[in-house]
Amino acid sequence: MAIDVASLAPLFAPESVAVIGASSEPLKIGGRPIGFLKNNGYKGRILPINPKASEIQGLPAFPTLGDVDGPVDLAICAVPGAHAMATLKACAKKGVRSVVMFSAGFAEVSEEGRIAQAEMASFARQSGIRLMGPNCMGIANVRTGMIASFHPAFMFPQPKDGHIGLVSQSGAFGGHCMQMARERGVGFSYMVTTGNEADVQASDALAYLATDPHVAVIMLYLEGCRDGARMIEALEIARRNNKPVVAIKLGRTDAGAKAAQSHTAALAGADNVFEAVFKQYGVYRAYNIEEFFDVGVATSIGCMPRNNKVGLVTVSGGVGVLMADDAAARGLDVEELPAATQAKFKKLVPFAGVTNPLDVTGQIMNDRTLLEQAVNLVLDESDYGSLVCFQGASSADPQFAADQLAVWSRVKARFPDRLVTVSGLLSADFIKVLEANGIPTSRDPTHSLRAIAALHGFAKAFAEPFSRPHVALATQHLPSGSLNEIDAMAVLAHAGLDVVAERLATTADAAVAAADAAGYPCVMKVVSADLVHKSDVGGVKLNLADQHAVRAAFDDIMRSVKSAAPKAKLDGCLVAPMITARGIETIIGVTQDPVFGPVVMFGLGGIFVEALHDVAFRLAPFDDAEAHRMIREIRTYKVLEGLRGAPASDIDALAKALAAVSRFAAANVGQQVSLEANPFLVRPRGQGAIALDAVVTVGVPAHIV
Amino acid sequence: MAIDVASLAPLFAPESVAVIGASSEPLKIGGRPIGFLKNNGYKGRILPINPKASEIQGLPAFPTLGDVDGPVDLAICAVPGAHAMATLKACAKKGVRSVVMFSAGFAEVSEEGRIAQAEMASFARQSGIRLMGPNCMGIANVRTGMIASFHPAFMFPQPKDGHIGLVSQSGAFGGHCMQMARERGVGFSYMVTTGNEADVQASDALAYLATDPHVAVIMLYLEGCRDGARMIEALEIARRNNKPVVAIKLGRTDAGAKAAQSHTAALAGADNVFEAVFKQYGVYRAYNIEEFFDVGVATSIGCMPRNNKVGLVTVSGGVGVLMADDAAARGLDVEELPAATQAKFKKLVPFAGVTNPLDVTGQIMNDRTLLEQAVNLVLDESDYGSLVCFQGASSADPQFAADQLAVWSRVKARFPDRLVTVSGLLSADFIKVLEANGIPTSRDPTHSLRAIAALHGFAKAFAEPFSRPHVALATQHLPSGSLNEIDAMAVLAHAGLDVVAERLATTADAAVAAADAAGYPCVMKVVSADLVHKSDVGGVKLNLADQHAVRAAFDDIMRSVKSAAPKAKLDGCLVAPMITARGIETIIGVTQDPVFGPVVMFGLGGIFVEALHDVAFRLAPFDDAEAHRMIREIRTYKVLEGLRGAPASDIDALAKALAAVSRFAAANVGQQVSLEANPFLVRPRGQGAIALDAVVTVGVPAHIV
Repeated sequence: MAIDVASLAPLFAPESVAVIGASSEPLKIGGRPIGFLKNNGYKGRILPINPKASEIQGLPAFPTLGDVDGPVDLAICAVPGAHAMATLKACAKKGVRSVVMFSAGFAEVSEEGRIAQAEMASFARQSGIRLMGPNCMGIANVRTGMIASFHPAFMFPQPKDGHIGLVSQSGAFGGHCMQMARERGVGFSYMVTTGNEADVQASDALAYLATDPHVAVIMLYLEGCRDGARMIEALEIARRNNKPVVAIKLGRTDAGAKAAQSHTAALAGADNVFEAVFKQYGVYRAYNIEEFFDVGVATSIGCMPRNNKVGLVTVSGGVGVLMADDAAARGLDVEELPAATQAKFKKLVPFAGVTNPLDVTGQIMNDRTLLEQAVNLVLDESDYGSLVCFQGASSADPQFAADQLAVWSRVKARFPDRLVTVSGLLSADFIKVLEANGIPTSRDPTHSLRAIAALHGFAKAFAEPFSRPHVALATQHLPSGSLNEIDAMAVLAHAGLDVVAERLATTADAAVAAADAAGYPCVMKVVSADLVHKSDVGGVKLNLADQHAVRAAFDDIMRSVKSAAPKAKLDGCLVAPMITARGIETIIGVTQDPVFGPVVMFGLGGIFVEALHDVAFRLAPFDDAEAHRMIREIRTYKVLEGLRGAPASDIDALAKALAAVSRFAAANVGQQVSLEANPFLVRPRGQGAIALDAVVTVGVPAHIV
Repeated sequence: MAIDVASLAPLFAPESVAVIGASSEPLKIGGRPIGFLKNNGYKGRILPINPKASEIQGLPAFPTLGDVDGPVDLAICAVPGAHAMATLKACAKKGVRSVVMFSAGFAEVSEEGRIAQAEMASFARQSGIRLMGPNCMGIANVRTGMIASFHPAFMFPQPKDGHIGLVSQSGAFGGHCMQMARERGVGFSYMVTTGNEADVQASDALAYLATDPHVAVIMLYLEGCRDGARMIEALEIARRNNKPVVAIKLGRTDAGAKAAQSHTAALAGADNVFEAVFKQYGVYRAYNIEEFFDVGVATSIGCMPRNNKVGLVTVSGGVGVLMADDAAARGLDVEELPAATQAKFKKLVPFAGVTNPLDVTGQIMNDRTLLEQAVNLVLDESDYGSLVCFQGASSADPQFAADQLAVWSRVKARFPDRLVTVSGLLSADFIKVLEANGIPTSRDPTHSLRAIAALHGFAKAFAEPFSRPHVALATQHLPSGSLNEIDAMAVLAHAGLDVVAERLATTADAAVAAADAAGYPCVMKVVSADLVHKSDVGGVKLNLADQHAVRAAFDDIMRSVKSAAPKAKLDGCLVAPMITARGIETIIGVTQDPVFGPVVMFGLGGIFVEALHDVAFRLAPFDDAEAHRMIREIRTYKVLEGLRGAPASDIDALAKALAAVSRFAAANVGQQVSLEANPFLVRPRGQGAIALDAVVTVGVPAHIV
């Protein structure tokens, strides 16, 4: 189902909020949202619904929804699960436009619960109600004070000026982030927790936030995803609107996937397919809470650097070297300062290290103009897109701290388009002022460098023209089941791959004729969809030099296969030229992910790759440019560039093949095609690439290994 | 030079400290140590030396060292570099036993400085003075208040009950750690900064701390190392005393190595050799300050877990899954709880996740006995060596925090030998109580899991019997320069490797006789120390079936090589049996590290390995057990175990070969042997391993690539 962003407005920005199950006790689940709405300055109507009280927490209460005068944009359902459906019906009767349902006891506990939840979802859909939950901690629009949540994090005031939108499938996790935000003094504009996702999914929330001007970055916590297409649509909206997405997704290891399965009912999809989706849409994937939070916050504060060069300024030479190591390990370029710049700084501090890092030394305590001189020099005379300054504990002295804040304010004003970051043992107040000024901070420079690498990743992704290719290919009706090699190769050829020319022969005479056409030497293989390991049954003969050898080979193969695999249906023998050309053996595969559909896999052939799991995935379809990125993603990529004087491979031909296969897979999405071209021989540059063997199955969903 | 720990006592635990260049101004470099010694309760004599004052900061001052009544264990030299040598001479005259020299302007600035420093070192050695520095921030024995440093970190009181000894070649870095320690409320027993290391090196300090009962863990910051043997000796002392070492070493990337070079004059050695040394001695290597500090602190607090199984308890299901992912990614075992235990907890909280993680859910806020019940259940009914409990922000409520502290105190008393850790948004006071109780804490569970993995690494390293093998092998006199293949193979055979039998033939007749002895098919290769790429000059013939082929091949090779490489000195042709046995091609190498001496390298053969740099290093000599660990370290190790039904390789034979080569390299350390057995064919289990080709050079120091 496509995303309907407009229909979500009453949920994200309601002008009136009813609380069904409203309680006078501010700590009860039905009492909390009323207190939160009041205390956070919500300007819309707050409408407590309670049949037994005429006033709740100082507000006039209504016995039923029907008694409310005027429209209700959002109803919070804080009643026990058993009464949830009745409440939803009352909402429909009143014309309520959206519902946040705290009530639990649905798909997360039992099959009956799952059925009840599906009924609610279907009813909500028919009634035009957007339903968040059940079993969720609700939604908070922090700027407007619209806190439709019962999470205790909102007992304390949150900073209101934030630009981070948080979408979390877990309520506890969402609340934890809000607590971290308050402690850190960082503002979030939205917290959205989607719970069981009967109707509104994380994807919908993501899409809404991607269109909201108060959201500069979206933080996305995922346990799984039921609807891959909807997630893709949301990510496309975010990508088109240049909204960076920082994601954390559970289940990247077997242990985690198992734990996730017992924790959530959501369909997970293969983790490496999520990984591919994140790469394809420029999403930053974090692996722990700290990284998720830090990168999200830094992205909301800092600008995107123009390049991956980073200038390093430090009060400690040793920490400077650590930063250089760390930056390089993160793929940043620690380019040296120009010689003239180095000489200028040497005049200021003769014993300073000046290459990059620039080590201002403890001298900054004696000469209080030194820090600003150093930073200005570095940024004026280089084109570093970003800068990290490690200050140690130098800001512990209050006077020096005040001086430094003034320095950084001037630096940022002078270099508004550089990503300037400051690291050290900084006080909370110091951090607040710097970050309000667009300068992300960290206690350890490794976190500043991580943020810089992340922001550069976004800059790079957003600089690339974004287009998922149209699929011009017509759907081809394929026979279902496992195809024999001849048919499989025909499918690859149809998809647009070069394939080795194979001829089917059912008699020895026909084999000789086919060999004459193919040329010598040639190879022969038994053709049978029933046989996977043809060599094991004597079904393969290589390097056949002449007619005599071909004739003998045909008879040999037929006899030997019939004896080794008497039940296999044999379609004959294929005859093909023996490919002796140099090249690198690769594998191109297509599998069907239960969540995202057709996925293309690429890796080098051989047992080393099997030992290393060195493969890249992409969702189909994609274009040549994406295929090039995919190819460069594997760790053994250098092999394709040519090692030890070997010629560079025809990577363009390989990229074209991958993109072609992806279009074919997308065009035939309904037919559940799994295929593998293996080996797919990539020849030296200019000589193309060709499939030497293929396995294709149709209509049998296969999981990715 | 061997380490003399006893001679360092006057430096680390002096009973009297003179300050030469003592100042009345407490902020001056010559004033600070006096204030620090006074304010930190140092019980020994503090002896300010100043010709112009009779009293300094309330203490009687002496005009010269010679005027001091009684002995002086340690003299702090806080005079300009130009007066350092004179001061050292005065110290010698007085019989001072150790000197901490703050003075700068030596090897770190110029060649003259380097010479002056060498003179001081030599003078100190002759005078029996242990000299720390010059250009260092001194040493602090925090427990005794003996602060012989001028770092501003000591302006504030440090916790005195710590068990962490810090050795840092950088003064600024050492001070930064002390500032972090104070902020965190963590105690260090020593901070030692070694500066230019004219005499006392980081290795000496490491060895001293490894023998000190107040040191439970040593944190080591290294920029480089001049004396590999001394570092090895220190690490052996630490290893024998079961003192965990957490190290951070600069220059792991090219950018970092370059920056380090411009920052320090110290000889670095190859980073991968340091990495190997750390592995060999069970040292934990950290890559950033936070990791260095966190792991060091956790190691000083927590016990070593008995196994790598970790129990996970969480108030948030999502965070529980993240922990499971993180634990698995760190190589910890997230074994499920026994079914009976799961059932017991389900009775307490029916909707809880109970596999592992155990999700206690927000219920712990309602049932305040639940946390303790859960943790006891998990630890009682499993053999998890360690546990992480994620509490979120639940301790924000003061009453609940007090309850929780009592719970953790009881848990730790009940399970003293389990490594129990707590993670969440904890207050500083909460952290202090837990950590005093032996429970390491973190704000993010990923850091608890990192600490657990580190502590488990120490447990594993310390459980292995530690022995560097004696080198029984006699030194063999080798011809110097590049050896031809015959001689090179003889060297490998002498080292104890199986080598393919090669015979040298200088005539076609001799070649035929050699082939008859070798058996058919055979191979022939030109023998010349001048030719590296023998195939390129037509110098190799494979698969020779009979005498006729051998005779023709001899003539072919000679003709073709003479024409392609007329200047090469040809020793003849070697004849060897053609090895067609199955096996995995590997590479065994020996190189000479400028710091650590002979190093053994191992990896699989082939271009994939070259693309991946998938190799392991070890310092020679080592035993079979270490060789087994080395072999298992490469990422492509699975290939040796047999993939796709291939037979497992003879890993025992491979390990024996690596250990043999390491003994050979150690025995011939004076001759600078570099060798490479490539390919070294490892056959299926039970069938041994054999060198098929070799390159050996003698007397030419070669760097590791």
